[in-house]
Amino acid sequence: METPQVHNFGAGPCILPKSVMEQAASAVINWNQSGLSILEVSHRSPEFESVVLKTQLLVRELLKVPDDYSVLFLQGGASTQFSMIPQSFLKTKGAYLDTGYFAQKAIKEARFYGDVQIVASSRDRDYTYVPDCDNIHYDADYIHTTSNNTIEGTEIFNFPKLGIPHFCDMSSDIFSRPVNVRDFDLIYAGAQKNMGPAGMTMIIVRNALLKTVDKTLPSMSDYRVFRDNNSLYNTPPVFSIYVSMLNLIWLKDKGGVEGVEQLNIRKANTLYAEIDRNTLFYGLANVAHRSRMNVTFKMKDPSLEREFLDFAAERGVVGIKGYRTVGGFRVSLYNALPLNSVNILVAAMRDFEGLKYSSSIISNTEKELNKAELYA
Amino acid sequence: METPQVHNFGAGPCILPKSVMEQAASAVINWNQSGLSILEVSHRSPEFESVVLKTQLLVRELLKVPDDYSVLFLQGGASTQFSMIPQSFLKTKGAYLDTGYFAQKAIKEARFYGDVQIVASSRDRDYTYVPDCDNIHYDADYIHTTSNNTIEGTEIFNFPKLGIPHFCDMSSDIFSRPVNVRDFDLIYAGAQKNMGPAGMTMIIVRNALLKTVDKTLPSMSDYRVFRDNNSLYNTPPVFSIYVSMLNLIWLKDKGGVEGVEQLNIRKANTLYAEIDRNTLFYGLANVAHRSRMNVTFKMKDPSLEREFLDFAAERGVVGIKGYRTVGGFRVSLYNALPLNSVNILVAAMRDFEGLKYSSSIISNTEKELNKAELYA
Repeated sequence: METPQVHNFGAGPCILPKSVMEQAASAVINWNQSGLSILEVSHRSPEFESVVLKTQLLVRELLKVPDDYSVLFLQGGASTQFSMIPQSFLKTKGAYLDTGYFAQKAIKEARFYGDVQIVASSRDRDYTYVPDCDNIHYDADYIHTTSNNTIEGTEIFNFPKLGIPHFCDMSSDIFSRPVNVRDFDLIYAGAQKNMGPAGMTMIIVRNALLKTVDKTLPSMSDYRVFRDNNSLYNTPPVFSIYVSMLNLIWLKDKGGVEGVEQLNIRKANTLYAEIDRNTLFYGLANVAHRSRMNVTFKMKDPSLEREFLDFAAERGVVGIKGYRTVGGFRVSLYNALPLNSVNILVAAMRDFEGLKYSSSIISNTEKELNKAELYA
Repeated sequence: METPQVHNFGAGPCILPKSVMEQAASAVINWNQSGLSILEVSHRSPEFESVVLKTQLLVRELLKVPDDYSVLFLQGGASTQFSMIPQSFLKTKGAYLDTGYFAQKAIKEARFYGDVQIVASSRDRDYTYVPDCDNIHYDADYIHTTSNNTIEGTEIFNFPKLGIPHFCDMSSDIFSRPVNVRDFDLIYAGAQKNMGPAGMTMIIVRNALLKTVDKTLPSMSDYRVFRDNNSLYNTPPVFSIYVSMLNLIWLKDKGGVEGVEQLNIRKANTLYAEIDRNTLFYGLANVAHRSRMNVTFKMKDPSLEREFLDFAAERGVVGIKGYRTVGGFRVSLYNALPLNSVNILVAAMRDFEGLKYSSSIISNTEKELNKAELYA
């Protein structure tokens, strides 16, 4: 039985390049002709240590990470970072930019460790925009932002510059565009969007920041332990790191984050243009803050949404259902998603509109006929 | 180029069954004919939720987990449990059985949260035995033990029965033998030995124990959060859970933990018999506490160890070098290691002995000849 072509717009764990999947599958059987699977290789072997090193170097090269920053690989997901950051750095107060569901989660965990100041929030309009916070007065140990709001479909294109340490959750748009690492003191990202398989979290941290930690911490919550042990304090998520390495090699071949950004802009523009043109759909996010990674939209007639999901699924379009708290559709356009998949979705939207338009003509015609019969 | 047959005696991440690797590789390309890779499947999809459920049911069936226990899948490794346990359960004092390197690590992290009482230690004889602690007086919130000491090569066959909650690190012998779950209140195990790929940690916890937690905890450090969200509070280590499921299906087909225990006993007996017979080698652990999972031994002449490593490597034997603090050899005999691999190692030990014996005869003969020439 042939498997139909699938266009995976899922929000994460998400699509990775086909060639990366093929190399990963091959390494599960026999890694580098070693006769061993990548799953049974010692994390203390020189071969795997060089995988860790190469992955770090690729991160450094692709994101132009300055030498005075460390690149670490942890477990637990971004959710663990919601705690680890305040545990290490919240002394009096943490400032948080409230841009949605995951920012809220970070805020909740920070409250466990001390005071939280929400410097600005877009909650008033269902998180459909990114609030400005440059001119807000605050007095905090750090500011925490979320660069891309996966559920709400907004993205920060102008980060606040504030003179206090800036920590940023880049889980859902890391490696999708260039970023000036020097504008941040700690960047973190769960791997399962543009980096690799779920189970690994990347940290990019300014070394000087780690010097400000003046207390003893549990080892697995201490960034210094991971830095001092080159992310090999305990058994790391071997496979996630390895596949991330493969994926970053792929990204480099595609022209790096600069190259993929151009493709991502084209994919996003194609889809947003159709949302704006199509009479059945409308976008949720403020146009200036529209995410290139996660596009959120709804139908003017919500009763048609189920039908459109099925209509699109027949063409292999999967993973476009909106998050339960938002509803409608969420279409994720991560690096590995081809432009062709976007074109197929756009064609489905057009054809569905055409179908509805003609059925509405038929329906109206039928009504007229019925009326005519009635008054005949 | 054909890859030579490799016998992987590594301590972990370690060997998994070949058929499991093949299924895992296939799922990386196209999972269940879905057209999607297992790496790009949403953890919120019904298909993946059923993987989590099936893995939990297999754990329950294989280890006969009673209904009033929960089975959870976390990240971070056993090292994260060293902290999470005292963070949740250490109110006044935690009692620890000090049986080696990883027990020491658990003790170190517990001290961050309160008093630690080391109820017994085998440190006096380089952790080559398991100290008795049944008759020791203590007064603590719980006792913590390590069922198998990976680095030192000892294993607990008679667990202390103590009337206080019993927490056990079973990372390196879980699923290698039956265990009476009711004797424990919380069992934890990093996946990367007998369960699956690195990046996942299994918890088996008595529900009543979780009711004794009377404080707010960071979400990712709170067992209750994982239980209440069926291990899907945040993105879990999808691939590690999936491959664990495949591996536990394999284990069930092999007769479960009862079946594999018989094979493990046979493998261990075969190797220990050769260590005891061979004039060049000697075992490190007390015979009554010899681990079936990790066999530690040395050579009477340590200068031969490097040569034996190379000699064995020529026959495809890898991963037998001892841990750096112990030296000598550590041979791991996890579930997926075939008896044939043990036979090949044993043959290498015999042949190496033969080689040394004959070269010593030649060497002596040469000396005699030289002497004869000298006095000719």
